[in-house]
Amino acid sequence: MSKSYTQTEQQFLDYLKEIQSYNEAISVMYWDLRTKAPKKGVKQRSETIGMLSQKVHQLSTSDQMKAFIDQLKDNTDDEIIQKSVLESEREYELNAKIPEDEFKKYVILQSEAESVWEEAREKSDFEMFRPYLEKLVEYNIKFANYWGYKENIYDALLDNFEPGMTVATLDKVFPALRDALTPLIEKVEQSNHKPDTSNILVPFAKEKQEAFSLEILKEMGYDFEAGRLDDTVHPFMIALNPNDVRVTTRYDEHDFRMAVFGTIHEGGHALYEQNLDESLIDTPLATGTSNGIHESQSLFWETYVARSRAFWERYFEKLKEYAPKEIGELSKEEFYRAVNEVKPSFIRIEADEMTYPLHIMIRYELEKGLINQEIEVKDLPKLWNDKMEEYLGIRPENDGEGVLQDVHWAGGAFGYFPSYALGYMYGAQLHNAMNEQFDVSQAIENGELNKIKEWLKDNVHQYGKTKKPLEILLDVTGEGLNADYLVNYLEEKYKDIYKW
Amino acid sequence: MSKSYTQTEQQFLDYLKEIQSYNEAISVMYWDLRTKAPKKGVKQRSETIGMLSQKVHQLSTSDQMKAFIDQLKDNTDDEIIQKSVLESEREYELNAKIPEDEFKKYVILQSEAESVWEEAREKSDFEMFRPYLEKLVEYNIKFANYWGYKENIYDALLDNFEPGMTVATLDKVFPALRDALTPLIEKVEQSNHKPDTSNILVPFAKEKQEAFSLEILKEMGYDFEAGRLDDTVHPFMIALNPNDVRVTTRYDEHDFRMAVFGTIHEGGHALYEQNLDESLIDTPLATGTSNGIHESQSLFWETYVARSRAFWERYFEKLKEYAPKEIGELSKEEFYRAVNEVKPSFIRIEADEMTYPLHIMIRYELEKGLINQEIEVKDLPKLWNDKMEEYLGIRPENDGEGVLQDVHWAGGAFGYFPSYALGYMYGAQLHNAMNEQFDVSQAIENGELNKIKEWLKDNVHQYGKTKKPLEILLDVTGEGLNADYLVNYLEEKYKDIYKW
Repeated sequence: MSKSYTQTEQQFLDYLKEIQSYNEAISVMYWDLRTKAPKKGVKQRSETIGMLSQKVHQLSTSDQMKAFIDQLKDNTDDEIIQKSVLESEREYELNAKIPEDEFKKYVILQSEAESVWEEAREKSDFEMFRPYLEKLVEYNIKFANYWGYKENIYDALLDNFEPGMTVATLDKVFPALRDALTPLIEKVEQSNHKPDTSNILVPFAKEKQEAFSLEILKEMGYDFEAGRLDDTVHPFMIALNPNDVRVTTRYDEHDFRMAVFGTIHEGGHALYEQNLDESLIDTPLATGTSNGIHESQSLFWETYVARSRAFWERYFEKLKEYAPKEIGELSKEEFYRAVNEVKPSFIRIEADEMTYPLHIMIRYELEKGLINQEIEVKDLPKLWNDKMEEYLGIRPENDGEGVLQDVHWAGGAFGYFPSYALGYMYGAQLHNAMNEQFDVSQAIENGELNKIKEWLKDNVHQYGKTKKPLEILLDVTGEGLNADYLVNYLEEKYKDIYKW
Repeated sequence: MSKSYTQTEQQFLDYLKEIQSYNEAISVMYWDLRTKAPKKGVKQRSETIGMLSQKVHQLSTSDQMKAFIDQLKDNTDDEIIQKSVLESEREYELNAKIPEDEFKKYVILQSEAESVWEEAREKSDFEMFRPYLEKLVEYNIKFANYWGYKENIYDALLDNFEPGMTVATLDKVFPALRDALTPLIEKVEQSNHKPDTSNILVPFAKEKQEAFSLEILKEMGYDFEAGRLDDTVHPFMIALNPNDVRVTTRYDEHDFRMAVFGTIHEGGHALYEQNLDESLIDTPLATGTSNGIHESQSLFWETYVARSRAFWERYFEKLKEYAPKEIGELSKEEFYRAVNEVKPSFIRIEADEMTYPLHIMIRYELEKGLINQEIEVKDLPKLWNDKMEEYLGIRPENDGEGVLQDVHWAGGAFGYFPSYALGYMYGAQLHNAMNEQFDVSQAIENGELNKIKEWLKDNVHQYGKTKKPLEILLDVTGEGLNADYLVNYLEEKYKDIYKW
């Protein structure tokens, strides 16, 4: 039976569907650009994406949208419509402040910048990318001013990705987390029981890595009739619609960890989008509630599941079917310890759990500086390298493994990075809550990954944007953001691996 | 230096670019649906394509478009704008007659029908596809009546694909062609010198077929920085924009001819779109001038180039690098004769040059009957099989190799098929004209495929829609449609192969 709506409600739903359709078209083209598109077509494609994004912008900021919001805000019995109105209002407020023409230019810039970045990264040529990055920073400063803020201009950007998050909070949480991690990292460095990775960093054919990754995605409950796995430079998940949620990964034939843990990470994002409640489809509520919660899902699978001892108890034999003989000859324990090596390294997405948050802090400080105009783009490569030395004790040899490594800035996403660290902390809290209901390690060891997926679906996925991030956290864990769970988890796990 | 336009001209160009952008987005989604998209996302994607197609329809039939046409029709010095106005007017007249709502439903139906057809074809299940086909026929009859016609309702559809073509003409040309081909086919059948195909129909790995196909595409001058090659059920070429022109093919591991000649065929289409004059980009003139001329390009490469003795003189050694040993052990002559076997067969796109036009005539008669309401959809499978027996002396065992084999009807393309036969005839005429300027066989044997591409670019490709089909033909060959060149070519070639 289909619901009966008032005429205005039905018109509003149709209007939302039109916006979602434009977004779907944009996403297909974005996916194509990042995975399949030939070089010469990029410029024109970017313009097309710009044109369609402008349509979304127009629809989201139209007088018609304002009228829907005003008419329906306190005047609908339907919960989904009610929450869609609130979400539409939030977007209206954000978008209406940006002049349409500026918005279109910005979208074209984003798309071109990502393609230039791809080449610049490959060639480690920061100068090639610099003019694009300068313009992107300029736009973000302008937008932040349009949107307004209370304390710090960067708050305006943060709020886009994690509603309610501020510089004031991060400037407390991050240093505290750094203070907790530093002594742990020192203990790791002083340990006499370091894992040996020489036998896992061996040639591993791309096709075999892919075959194993596909097997694990299937075990996780990823629905291949509603998604697919492709190659890309920078791995990502993209939901074209909730029935077509795609994952991409990157293969390094000399380090299988990149592709395998990367696929599982993006697969975690994908499960979120594949398991939204059907009733949310075609509304702005049909996506994850925030970047931080989204990252809590990807990191849950990547770290709390795939880097656990229980996981390799279960799946090491499976891996051996694909892996080169050097890996096959390791004991489960040697293998488990090797994939959990803690070692300061250059590339964020290859970083271990312990040093990962430090990568985030570096980016956070740099982008906070850029947006506050205390740092200039041209100085970024040096500042990046200096901070790497300060936080991690290592210095990149080129910008490809330094400041150019991430796609985020090329896509204009300033204020996004902190979500990763938040995701780690949320993830640890969810892991703790799940453990109170069943023995997570035991479930993993039994190969019952589906039990984990179902729990996450029931407690997180299905709600989409109908619950705010802190609402989810509170409902599931009974408390707010708390970094202690992450620190405790890391201490316990690595004390065991490094035997201190 | 950029041209200077009047304000109206510039507004018109911007308006055309917006239409082209929508078309590009639709094409990306169409390509994705046919090559990569997971099953469950199809329905929603179809709706999105429907929504965007409706936008194109709205823009093409708007009062604004009418105003541009009226203002600019006899009032612009710019040739491209002038011809764009005429093309826009033609489309305006076509589209304005279809109610917007009907149009949207039709586009969604097309997209869904193609997906259903794909499954129905695989399962040889006509009943699964029947209700969709019935609706598609109904719509086409309705549209043909909206558009109007002088003599036969089917003319209204034909005109969409080959401006000016009529049932009256085809009812003369096709029987005459059939009368010329029948005795040739008889001679072939009675020949004592039949080629032996047993050694070419051998297992040939998909990857190797693909590698060889890619090499030949490169030789043809296909620009891989402006295109790519993918797998699909039914091979096609699609121009997302002139700098992104994609080719798809289908691999049969027991018959490499499918993929190799198919790729070359679609590559011929792609060269047309890649070599349009740059000044046409973003206008409705930036595509081939008609389906018939487009087919003359694909068939030129497939038959007059790739099935020639000269081609295998040059490329047989290359093929051997990839081919299984049974093929490698053949002489060039044995191989050349084998790939030119004439033998009535079920699948149009696998048919030889001689019997191919008969496949077209069958389709032509059936769709003419459907549109004139002399035939019912439910009777199609039997009628198809009866006609196959009458024209080719063979009867399909199931509908997958019969009435369900082609995607065209699923996409609502009635009136399209005759273009293929026209393309054969045009191709023979172009081949003759090219031969008057240089020795085509010698060029092929020298590996100078580029010389052929350049000639086609200069004489056909660059013009896009700025010249009408018959204008091209007249300018290049000095005469109109003439089937004699095709008949002479076939007679000479096969007399030699079958030694009659």
